[in-house]
Amino acid sequence: MSTSINLAVIPGDGIGQEVVAQGLKVLTAVLPQDVKLETKQYDLGAQRWHRTGETLPDAELESLKHHDAILLGAIGDPSVPSGVLERGLLLKLRFAFDHFINLRPSKLFPNTATPLAGRPEIDFVVVREGTEGPYTGNGGSLRTGTPAEVATEVSINTAYGVERVVRDAYERANARPRKKLTLVHKNNVLVYAGHLWKNIFDKVGQEYPEVTTDYLHVDAATIFFVTQPERFDVIVTDNLFGDILTDLAAAVTGGIGLAASGNINPTGAFPSMFEPVHGSAPDIAGTGKADPTATILSVALLLRHLGHEAEAARIEDAVTADLAERDGTFRSTDAIGDALAARVAG
Amino acid sequence: MSTSINLAVIPGDGIGQEVVAQGLKVLTAVLPQDVKLETKQYDLGAQRWHRTGETLPDAELESLKHHDAILLGAIGDPSVPSGVLERGLLLKLRFAFDHFINLRPSKLFPNTATPLAGRPEIDFVVVREGTEGPYTGNGGSLRTGTPAEVATEVSINTAYGVERVVRDAYERANARPRKKLTLVHKNNVLVYAGHLWKNIFDKVGQEYPEVTTDYLHVDAATIFFVTQPERFDVIVTDNLFGDILTDLAAAVTGGIGLAASGNINPTGAFPSMFEPVHGSAPDIAGTGKADPTATILSVALLLRHLGHEAEAARIEDAVTADLAERDGTFRSTDAIGDALAARVAG
Ligand SMILES: CC(C)[C@H](C(=O)O)[C@@H](O)C(=O)O
Ligand SMILES: CC(C)[C@H](C(=O)O)[C@@H](O)C(=O)O
Repeated sequence: MSTSINLAVIPGDGIGQEVVAQGLKVLTAVLPQDVKLETKQYDLGAQRWHRTGETLPDAELESLKHHDAILLGAIGDPSVPSGVLERGLLLKLRFAFDHFINLRPSKLFPNTATPLAGRPEIDFVVVREGTEGPYTGNGGSLRTGTPAEVATEVSINTAYGVERVVRDAYERANARPRKKLTLVHKNNVLVYAGHLWKNIFDKVGQEYPEVTTDYLHVDAATIFFVTQPERFDVIVTDNLFGDILTDLAAAVTGGIGLAASGNINPTGAFPSMFEPVHGSAPDIAGTGKADPTATILSVALLLRHLGHEAEAARIEDAVTADLAERDGTFRSTDAIGDALAARVAG
Repeated sequence: MSTSINLAVIPGDGIGQEVVAQGLKVLTAVLPQDVKLETKQYDLGAQRWHRTGETLPDAELESLKHHDAILLGAIGDPSVPSGVLERGLLLKLRFAFDHFINLRPSKLFPNTATPLAGRPEIDFVVVREGTEGPYTGNGGSLRTGTPAEVATEVSINTAYGVERVVRDAYERANARPRKKLTLVHKNNVLVYAGHLWKNIFDKVGQEYPEVTTDYLHVDAATIFFVTQPERFDVIVTDNLFGDILTDLAAAVTGGIGLAASGNINPTGAFPSMFEPVHGSAPDIAGTGKADPTATILSVALLLRHLGHEAEAARIEDAVTADLAERDGTFRSTDAIGDALAARVAG
């Protein structure tokens, strides 16, 4: 547990600014007096790109390295061509800091509106690989823009990369009461990558005899997400499948306004980065309608990563209690932040 | 409209046999007397592979070419290593016969149990590309089985392949009352393939001024499948995204027991193939519990493809009426087939 936190903050675009402000409010409120919090804001995102053409200059990437962790709001704006900020900023950070664990807990909190009939019990965590698969930027396009164009995307998978995320997932499963781990892939079609994942999953599993394991094709997994989500405990999966499944998981657990995530490098070699799963939602930016809860829950993941387990749990308990007492009347971004800050301080 | 149908039948594994028998029963019942139906069964699947090591020998592939269409039950058994029958038989057929349209309608029929609260209106069709993307079998594995293994999967996308499926999807959207087409991809990450798809989607769209268009990232699309499925009319997407989305679509429209599909080559150069989306379900094979409705609805797609629109509609109406009157008591595979055969004959 650290006695000081040197935090980089990337508010980003749209509602990013607003939700990050609430995240910092709750972080400040929950930290014990003797933990010193220092923050430095980084001006990155759509506006910066429009102004200077830069997405993530080397100097800033270097500077970011020297923080204990990064809190990010949201990146993206329709005025920027698709892919520029994703590849040039968001994914660049995940790859540069080797965030091989993309951690996304999914929990159906009390009183939240799930689209699923019967409100099943949902409490699982997706351990998504963060540095390989179809996300490496490998591929290209030939005769671009002509009727003879060929475009490729290459999914790269290594034993090194798969083993470290699979091992992390077993550790997490082993530490949970149900001790169940599901591998999701598509090894009947993507046979090369799929067999690599499955072989490593089975091999590492021998070291965790108490963990029950399971394999599902990604298409079948989406079915169970809506018909039997209670069957999942920990899920480990590839970068792209994890992207798809965690948005679906957010939807069935009451929406993207509550889904937190951590881009984690467990070795500590680089700072880990915490961000809500949602995007910058430019349509509601500035209206006070953004729900900061996902960012505040991401702050809890950040605290847990830095060893402040008690504070992390305090935030999560505050969110649970807050949602349980919610009566459906509208509360602004700020009001939700205030309410949660008051609870964690209390 | 043909005056004879020369049909290849591949019952396959598990419940495949049982559901195909009902599909043929309804097909026979619905066809006018003057349409001659000839069928030839092909013994392909897990048992054949165990017996002979063959998945799809050249002679049979050649023979299959000479049919007007193919009806397939289900392929796969846990006793066969993952990928063998998928790549060696199912996908081999789709690729050999250039089934570039993988058509998957999704409709919430009356009286079926959707996991979604509030029973939204669902009536859309997914036009999934069938011959490109991550399904081409391109890729490989280096230093297989060692800690230094690298495995790749290459998604191949061509202007030729994308344009023909996008054009087909516009045609279908243009022919429907709502005239709405949504492209689903992930062009903020898979920028090469994604931009190819988006550019062609926009270009072909200029020829269909009456069709309203829309773009969604695949992760966001899964959210709307559960929160707002009524927003979709026609969806066009890549092979893998289509695989994932259509299982989810089947789940929200009352399950995989009702989801039909066509692997279509609209040029007529090769026979098209119709099959339920579900698998061979070995756990319920032989129990009479399999729902043949998905296969029977696939027969409707087959008839429509061969120009028998009236008969196709008769089957679909029969299914709607049958489901509307269903009272929840158990009916066997056979009983459902009998009921539907009686309705279409009547
Ligand atoms: C914005 C995009 C690059 C990103 C991803 O695909 O990983 C997002 O969807 C996410 O899930 O964090
Ligand atoms: C069995 C498998 C090869 C197939 C696919 O991935 O296309 C199936 O899931 C489907 O959707 O028809």
